[in-house]
Amino acid sequence: MSAMKNDAITGRDVDFAQWYTDVCRKAELMDYGSVKGFIDYLPYGYAIWEEIQSYLNRRFKAIGTENVYLPTLIPSSLFNKEKEHVEGFAPETLVCTIGGGKELDDPLIVRPTSEVLFSDMYRRIVGSYRDLPKIYNQWCSVVRWEKTTRPFLRGAEFLWQEGHCLFETGEEARKNVQDVLDIYYELGRDVLAIPFLKGRKTEREKFAGAEATYTVEALMHDGKALQCGTSHYFGTGFSEAYGISFQGRANRLEAPHYTTWGVSTRLIGAIIMVHGDDNGLVLPPYVAPIQVAIIPIRQKTPGVLEAARKLKDDLLAAGIRAKLDEDDSKTPGWKFSEYEMKGVPVRIEVGPRDLEKGECTLARRVDGEKKTMPIGEVTSQIKGVLSEIHEKMLSLALESRLSRTREARSIEELDEALSQGGFCKMAFCGKEECELRIKEITNGGTARCIAEVVPAEGTLCPVCGEPATIVCYFAKAY
Amino acid sequence: MSAMKNDAITGRDVDFAQWYTDVCRKAELMDYGSVKGFIDYLPYGYAIWEEIQSYLNRRFKAIGTENVYLPTLIPSSLFNKEKEHVEGFAPETLVCTIGGGKELDDPLIVRPTSEVLFSDMYRRIVGSYRDLPKIYNQWCSVVRWEKTTRPFLRGAEFLWQEGHCLFETGEEARKNVQDVLDIYYELGRDVLAIPFLKGRKTEREKFAGAEATYTVEALMHDGKALQCGTSHYFGTGFSEAYGISFQGRANRLEAPHYTTWGVSTRLIGAIIMVHGDDNGLVLPPYVAPIQVAIIPIRQKTPGVLEAARKLKDDLLAAGIRAKLDEDDSKTPGWKFSEYEMKGVPVRIEVGPRDLEKGECTLARRVDGEKKTMPIGEVTSQIKGVLSEIHEKMLSLALESRLSRTREARSIEELDEALSQGGFCKMAFCGKEECELRIKEITNGGTARCIAEVVPAEGTLCPVCGEPATIVCYFAKAY
Repeated sequence: MSAMKNDAITGRDVDFAQWYTDVCRKAELMDYGSVKGFIDYLPYGYAIWEEIQSYLNRRFKAIGTENVYLPTLIPSSLFNKEKEHVEGFAPETLVCTIGGGKELDDPLIVRPTSEVLFSDMYRRIVGSYRDLPKIYNQWCSVVRWEKTTRPFLRGAEFLWQEGHCLFETGEEARKNVQDVLDIYYELGRDVLAIPFLKGRKTEREKFAGAEATYTVEALMHDGKALQCGTSHYFGTGFSEAYGISFQGRANRLEAPHYTTWGVSTRLIGAIIMVHGDDNGLVLPPYVAPIQVAIIPIRQKTPGVLEAARKLKDDLLAAGIRAKLDEDDSKTPGWKFSEYEMKGVPVRIEVGPRDLEKGECTLARRVDGEKKTMPIGEVTSQIKGVLSEIHEKMLSLALESRLSRTREARSIEELDEALSQGGFCKMAFCGKEECELRIKEITNGGTARCIAEVVPAEGTLCPVCGEPATIVCYFAKAY
Repeated sequence: MSAMKNDAITGRDVDFAQWYTDVCRKAELMDYGSVKGFIDYLPYGYAIWEEIQSYLNRRFKAIGTENVYLPTLIPSSLFNKEKEHVEGFAPETLVCTIGGGKELDDPLIVRPTSEVLFSDMYRRIVGSYRDLPKIYNQWCSVVRWEKTTRPFLRGAEFLWQEGHCLFETGEEARKNVQDVLDIYYELGRDVLAIPFLKGRKTEREKFAGAEATYTVEALMHDGKALQCGTSHYFGTGFSEAYGISFQGRANRLEAPHYTTWGVSTRLIGAIIMVHGDDNGLVLPPYVAPIQVAIIPIRQKTPGVLEAARKLKDDLLAAGIRAKLDEDDSKTPGWKFSEYEMKGVPVRIEVGPRDLEKGECTLARRVDGEKKTMPIGEVTSQIKGVLSEIHEKMLSLALESRLSRTREARSIEELDEALSQGGFCKMAFCGKEECELRIKEITNGGTARCIAEVVPAEGTLCPVCGEPATIVCYFAKAY
């Protein structure tokens, strides 16, 4: 890994896929693991995930969520019970057939998702309306035997959270689905600096078996959309299929309303592809493992290291993730590129010239803006600086999305718009066959989510000519 | 599960194993999962683990630890490289032989532990002394195909943290091993209210391949010891076996010094068996998912629920994990038993009579001690109350351990002492064959750890008659 360190990163507009892989590896977010298709989540990448976890745990808890942990393995007899489920996941499963040296009677599937286990548990532990709601969430890894993999975006194993909840009424369940969707949206807005589009999925794009699927979608630098989180309402169908029931208030047996929702380490991919540039990562301050990198200049000059260390200690004491790089085998210039490549939001240079005036220099990764500041004021100012950087990143990302969101009134217009990348709004009838036709014609364009506007009166579906019922954001997607 | 709720728990001294299982299930710490031998970690159990994680993450970070996540699966070709390792774990492995419907060329083993993966990663990413130290830790689950399982103590899958670290020098590595051992010890003293014995393992009891293994051991109510955490120094042997090397300061290729350390959800078992009583769980305040349960009395009386809710809000705002149980289908008496069984450290009764005087009643789970307190003072007093409870629990557990720690000068004395349960200190020569003989004679007594005292001059090993070199704490253990 150290061998790659000083090589240039492939240009973002030269080869976006290669740029992405370069950034993942050179910023030491991950490494290719010992198993083909699997990755090692290195500290710098994993720490981003921990920040996301920490935010979501706090928000989830506020809506009554409790964390649990269910087994990594699913008996194949249980897994195979629900046809639709099997068909969706079976081609990607990894199956254990040997345990303790003996062939297993009932082979075990490494969980690709845990609906089956949650349902089986709920069937056992839920008996009465007094046991509801159950708002359970699990942080874990899931395994899907994918052929083509890309770090964080598609892998044989990824980390995620999966909420699986039961409610007495559809109203409560639908509220839960919306509450979580809002949390995901706000995770983007307030933490990742990603302005998600949020909305319902079309019939064709919704999760198999769900009554409604909601999504948050982001636009990557290359013009492709990335689905970043989903929240599903299943009605009572799933509960019925798995035999979950409860004694209701009217003393009748009822099936609870089921919701599921999740985000994964794919969000790290979104952060990279929304904010990164030709010099590497650009991390939003609130998930950056290092928020401030302090680089001493002429560090052998008396007073420099002392001032830098005091600054670091003060920042750490103020709850800022600060790092002081004292390594005297590297030049300040080398360190500048290193922390730039790692996307550290703020670099502080502490050198003799500034120090004479009691000052230091702050540089913002997002736009290179530099300013000097009395060194004694940094600690009280830094939260404001990080907040400004966050706002700037959010606004750049929003501008990028809006400037690449077009509107179309015909398939030709849509095709033309999608060929340039970005989102394109278009009204259509909403039928699955028309959407499939759109995908064929545009060479992969799909409805990412339904917009919150209704089609203008008299608008017709550009495919079948029947009245349009919904307006969708279309895009080519990862 | 609700069906069991009001049954009595088996007496602790009637059938300890059954008492243990009853507590695990009735307190809703876990449920038996969909796969034989696996358990579901329910919210009340998982939340204890989250508190442990939170404490350890903070402490680990302070000694430079970084969290990572490596794959769940290990290629069998890699796993089988190191003989000693294979022999230790192979009988318990679960093996995936099918991926995406096809037979795998190189079957994948569900990780029983991750030495192999860490070593393989380090071999790739470590090149120079400048890359050291690597102090990496992983929170994950591991799978061991155990035949006989008990919730939290021995299971087919458990949650743990595993630190795997590399150092340039043996001195640094040994310091890391001790630092972590101290953290484990302090986790017991300051968080779990468990006074661990800590010390080095004998040659016979140390981890295969380790130069030295250190342990924290606790005494359960039934007189058996439980190993609660271990910290190992491997020297350079493990690195050499896995081909990890670095360019040293003298420009020569060297092998780094390897350490590993871990604790698991077994700690939840320790909490239950150290502190629990005939009425159920007794949770130490700093890991209790609910620290304070507020029970309204005559809750329909005007003012009662309002006062109870205000108290709950004030406690939550002060960072106390408080729960108000407003369920009017249950009597206060029922709730008293319920929260007692769940081991909630403090119960606060809010009723009309106390309220007239502006007071409420606090009851401590650990000893049933009750006192009234002005309701307005609870929030400022509660941290002190929890701290007193913690101290009391720690001191009870310490007293219990000390009163059951005997000394022996012959195998007969040791056998007699161990038959009563508890620890017994005895000097012996330290040789593996003598220790094995001790185990046979005492019907299972093992050296839990080496005491920090040396044998009195002239003491002989009661087995072989040669000079004694160490004093050990012996016990029968889980």
